Amino acid sequence: MTQHACDTAIALQHQSDNSYLGHTSPAYGNMVGPFGGITAAQALNAVLQHPQRLGEPVSLTVNFCAALADGPFNVTARPARTNRSTQHWVIEMQQQGQTVLTATAFTALRRETWSADEHTMPTVPLPGDVPLPEGRGRVEWINRYEFRFVSGGFPAAWDGTDHGVSRTCLWLRDNPPRPLDFASLAALSDVFFPRIWRRRATLVPIGTVSMTIYFHADSPQLQATGTGYLLGQAQAQAFRDGYFDQTAQLWNEAGELLVTTHQVVYYKE
Amino acid sequence: MTQHACDTAIALQHQSDNSYLGHTSPAYGNMVGPFGGITAAQALNAVLQHPQRLGEPVSLTVNFCAALADGPFNVTARPARTNRSTQHWVIEMQQQGQTVLTATAFTALRRETWSADEHTMPTVPLPGDVPLPEGRGRVEWINRYEFRFVSGGFPAAWDGTDHGVSRTCLWLRDNPPRPLDFASLAALSDVFFPRIWRRRATLVPIGTVSMTIYFHADSPQLQATGTGYLLGQAQAQAFRDGYFDQTAQLWNEAGELLVTTHQVVYYKE
Repeated sequence: MTQHACDTAIALQHQSDNSYLGHTSPAYGNMVGPFGGITAAQALNAVLQHPQRLGEPVSLTVNFCAALADGPFNVTARPARTNRSTQHWVIEMQQQGQTVLTATAFTALRRETWSADEHTMPTVPLPGDVPLPEGRGRVEWINRYEFRFVSGGFPAAWDGTDHGVSRTCLWLRDNPPRPLDFASLAALSDVFFPRIWRRRATLVPIGTVSMTIYFHADSPQLQATGTGYLLGQAQAQAFRDGYFDQTAQLWNEAGELLVTTHQVVYYKE
Repeated sequence: MTQHACDTAIALQHQSDNSYLGHTSPAYGNMVGPFGGITAAQALNAVLQHPQRLGEPVSLTVNFCAALADGPFNVTARPARTNRSTQHWVIEMQQQGQTVLTATAFTALRRETWSADEHTMPTVPLPGDVPLPEGRGRVEWINRYEFRFVSGGFPAAWDGTDHGVSRTCLWLRDNPPRPLDFASLAALSDVFFPRIWRRRATLVPIGTVSMTIYFHADSPQLQATGTGYLLGQAQAQAFRDGYFDQTAQLWNEAGELLVTTHQVVYYKE
């Protein structure tokens, strides 16, 4: 059986200086450099594979400092502070001695408490009742995911109309399906196309500069979600002088909120 | 004229090794250690004061690794990557050789583009028409701010009722008023009391572990806002097994969205 493209992409080799060696993956190629979500998953994987790791990811912030060049990269994950049941990580990715990504992560041993999802899943049709888009993605990474747009898909015309609202709601999962884990969930948190394209129906140049992911799910919930679909919803809050933010949620088919995530994105014009 | 407590609190002394020496401030004391917002402001100030800084803050993520002890701290800010008009920072705060905070920041030279606030300010009474709460805060830092709760204030009774919704909306500013800048805005982004207290009407122990701030405002907007009020709104999205998130917005009286911010908070029980 062939390895899933996601597993190939996030694979890291432990180095003698305790850093990890990885490699960009053509399967997740974007316009310039790789899809940011897979880079985030690679950064997180340096924590997940680290022998000193305590607990599971609760938060991750990745800062995209420069477009990665196709080829190898080095990633270090340092436990800056280890408490009794929590741990804080500082992560840095380099190519040819230049920093291309900085990140921080927080891992914790979780225990059961009173819990509630306050942002509940919107009422939407079942995944099987939502058609797949036609054709292949214009960039390679798009083909690594299955997207079924419930609302707020790509504008019917790139005519510069201000649509006033940037919200998108869609079912999504890895293509081919792959059992959900923290690394793939990190990548899935970044699949939403830029809110400014939806809002303005114009393909302005963009690039995510920082993304934060809060993992509300633990391993048993991810295992229970398996290869099922996630419902994703994303919307911008403000567009101002070259930067906009977008906030998103990912629920599983059972309606459990697995992730809330936010990012700030550069845009031109 | 006496220095404002905020200026005293965020003051840093440049050290010969290019780090900064700061000191916790009793004026911003919390239950255990100082108010996290002022610690975030201190971390950001190490970037703001750095001689190599390029541009203004666009994003800041601070991770609270441990409660700060009352006393001095050391903070380093390193420009990990400097591009033509953007810069990525890695920040670390230590006390007695132990890491108490990690952070990353992104600064940029902004230029005017098409802009829009998609999350518009809710319709609320004017600040002067909203009464001040009675009495002093139970912790000292509360007295450094003026809060006028429009909705979702502290529960009338701490009786453990699940209120179902955790939203709070309030007018706020420094007390006494102080012209807004990036450091004070970082602190103001953390003033919302924990959403779980609002949701459950129970004072469970809590502690923020990570907070991200997106600054949509630039210096001219902050100057125009001056000592005016900000309207803040905060709400949780999920509470799960010891951690909940809260998302918040801060608008000025002119209705401009200055900040969107998110945090993940530990809670017990």
